[in-house]
Amino acid sequence: MVTPTFTEELVDTVRAANNLAFERLDNADPWVVDVAAARDVIPNYPDNLVLTSGAPMEWVDYFGGQREALIGGALFEGLAPTREAAIAGFESGAIAIGACHDYSAVGSLAGIYTASMPVFVVENRAHGNVGFCNFYEGKEPRRLNYGCYDEGVRQRLEHVNTVLAPVVGEAIRRTGGVALKPLIARALRMGDEVHSRNAAASVLFNREILPAVLDMVHDGFPGVRDSMVHLAENDYFFLRLSMAAAKASADAMVVPGSTLVTAMAFSCRGFAIKIGGLGDQWFEGPPPVHEGKLFAGHTEDEITWMGGESPITETVGLGGFAQACALTLQEYQGGSAEVMIERNLQMYEITHGENSAYRIPLFNFRGTPTAVDARKVLDTGISPVMDVGLAGLDGGQIGAGIIRAPHECFEMAMAAFDALPDR
Amino acid sequence: MVTPTFTEELVDTVRAANNLAFERLDNADPWVVDVAAARDVIPNYPDNLVLTSGAPMEWVDYFGGQREALIGGALFEGLAPTREAAIAGFESGAIAIGACHDYSAVGSLAGIYTASMPVFVVENRAHGNVGFCNFYEGKEPRRLNYGCYDEGVRQRLEHVNTVLAPVVGEAIRRTGGVALKPLIARALRMGDEVHSRNAAASVLFNREILPAVLDMVHDGFPGVRDSMVHLAENDYFFLRLSMAAAKASADAMVVPGSTLVTAMAFSCRGFAIKIGGLGDQWFEGPPPVHEGKLFAGHTEDEITWMGGESPITETVGLGGFAQACALTLQEYQGGSAEVMIERNLQMYEITHGENSAYRIPLFNFRGTPTAVDARKVLDTGISPVMDVGLAGLDGGQIGAGIIRAPHECFEMAMAAFDALPDR
Repeated sequence: MVTPTFTEELVDTVRAANNLAFERLDNADPWVVDVAAARDVIPNYPDNLVLTSGAPMEWVDYFGGQREALIGGALFEGLAPTREAAIAGFESGAIAIGACHDYSAVGSLAGIYTASMPVFVVENRAHGNVGFCNFYEGKEPRRLNYGCYDEGVRQRLEHVNTVLAPVVGEAIRRTGGVALKPLIARALRMGDEVHSRNAAASVLFNREILPAVLDMVHDGFPGVRDSMVHLAENDYFFLRLSMAAAKASADAMVVPGSTLVTAMAFSCRGFAIKIGGLGDQWFEGPPPVHEGKLFAGHTEDEITWMGGESPITETVGLGGFAQACALTLQEYQGGSAEVMIERNLQMYEITHGENSAYRIPLFNFRGTPTAVDARKVLDTGISPVMDVGLAGLDGGQIGAGIIRAPHECFEMAMAAFDALPDR
Repeated sequence: MVTPTFTEELVDTVRAANNLAFERLDNADPWVVDVAAARDVIPNYPDNLVLTSGAPMEWVDYFGGQREALIGGALFEGLAPTREAAIAGFESGAIAIGACHDYSAVGSLAGIYTASMPVFVVENRAHGNVGFCNFYEGKEPRRLNYGCYDEGVRQRLEHVNTVLAPVVGEAIRRTGGVALKPLIARALRMGDEVHSRNAAASVLFNREILPAVLDMVHDGFPGVRDSMVHLAENDYFFLRLSMAAAKASADAMVVPGSTLVTAMAFSCRGFAIKIGGLGDQWFEGPPPVHEGKLFAGHTEDEITWMGGESPITETVGLGGFAQACALTLQEYQGGSAEVMIERNLQMYEITHGENSAYRIPLFNFRGTPTAVDARKVLDTGISPVMDVGLAGLDGGQIGAGIIRAPHECFEMAMAAFDALPDR
């Protein structure tokens, strides 16, 4: 069960570190308490910064949909008047690029944040840290986070900024914040795994803010009816809250000596992980391996990678690690109930423990497999599974499926761990 | 597979009748369109009538909780000033008793209806008939339908009559009715079987009426905020809609020559069924056999029968026939995921077909086993399973569990079927 280079003593040290990291994750208590512009709540967020998914890269390394999304973000924020000016701005550094994870944030697909974009503020009340995620753009396949930017995308983003986010933020503040862990735990009993399926969590969240919403209608707060109808129609709305909750939970796992994975994310270039004992260092391998189901009219060779940090949900024992809760996903992302159950069970072989809050009814309420141990991934050859949306070459969502993290990340991470002087 | 008395020709006739009955059930299209007082919408509902669950009986045959509930109903409706006067009224016939099913209605547990009580009006738009069910009283274990009547029960019933039902009715009318079949189908993907678990359906229903509710707040309609908060907190609210939808669906199955079960219901005395080929005739056996899980502090010998017509949900392929959708129920009513799955699978052996709308994700979206064939129950020795709440001797809910219909009902029904001159 251990890599050969580990001494008995080291095994004990690592086990203790992993126990502590797991305990912090298992005890995390994420609450959404506010919605505010990124520049106003994310520490050190300058007006010219565009965040994007994955391990940080130079501008020249971004290509395809993720590059288009960065350009779209710059245009939306008014950092450049034209596409050409945006490209020049990125080239000169006048427009800065950052990695979401470095700002306690996580991005969906391309994961574009700009200074004016509203973000959910999620406090981990057990650990005192904060995580962020911006808003779901809506059901339309053309979205900034899928590498698209046009007048329709701009209008929808603008609507989020000026109508939807103010309504949701006011409702959250009036509610006094919403505890996300019990809500997610409940959603797992209602067919969600809160990554590729958020139907229950979305409607449960709307229920939590309902009294405040009714008061806001009574008080004449603008845009409430339209916003609530929009929310009610968007089964994916909660994903951003689930991501922010997961980020706020996972960031508590950074413990020296731990081999547990604290982040999994990808860019157009590759898939990368962090482990607790190596802090903010990324270990990047090639893009993930996928099995998917494409929407009608699309083909396999259209699939492209343009980033994605929603695997933060898998990092905390949700998503693919809870897919036996969400067997309806077989329809959306392919597979069968049997395959999904088998995949979910397999994850127990590479995780440190079982979640005490997130439980699987089909497994007689066994806790979800939680906290991937990079060492166990190498020992077993089993790679973490993630439920994701699939993007197409020319932008837009073209399907959904599962991906597996590439083994290279874990090999690199454990090699670096072994090379630590004070491990 | 057929009882020995059936000739080949008869088998064909019965099969054709059963196919027609099944088709009508499978095509049912129940919509809730209104809420109104029983006297105003249930045909031939006189002011002095109290409805109750199960095959009709004389006053003297009612005992225990069901008798108490009848008395409570008379008091609530003001049909008698005292308990003694109510008893005298029932004895003299001044207060009339009817069986819910004879009025296109279904009752939960004791199933008390009085003239002023608001009922959901559910139209089966495919067949043109209407079904009714009255309102859930709330989470408090002391409820009229569990054989309790006191000032608290009275106040809660009064609140339903004067505040909750007017709000919900107005919201339904403003919404233009709510299609219940797609909503139930969706709830099955979200952990409900819409008998003992209605958490998803309740919140989905609230979502359907939300735009109307927001408009009502805007218009200053009274009681909206409290009612919606009440609804949001009551995961069982939808059961009455699921029962009315099931009743409106099952009533379309009355087809001469059919051996399919069109109703299952019980009183304090016994469990009874109807089959399609024998119209309104009940076949009553002893009380059902049960396996349950009691709330803390209660014992097996407290369990008592005081009626119940919620098995109308099982009649249409829901409840126990869809329990593999609602594995969380193992916590509430006992058992394990494995046992629940096995029980659900068993129901395919005694049903005529598989539901085309109601599907089970765990079974790779196989339709729920639908339409119990009395003949198959006799042939296999397998009895229909139902998810129910358990009532205690001195009133109130003391647990939950599953019951099995007694074989005697099916034997009597098929004996009567065999004896039909023109079958």
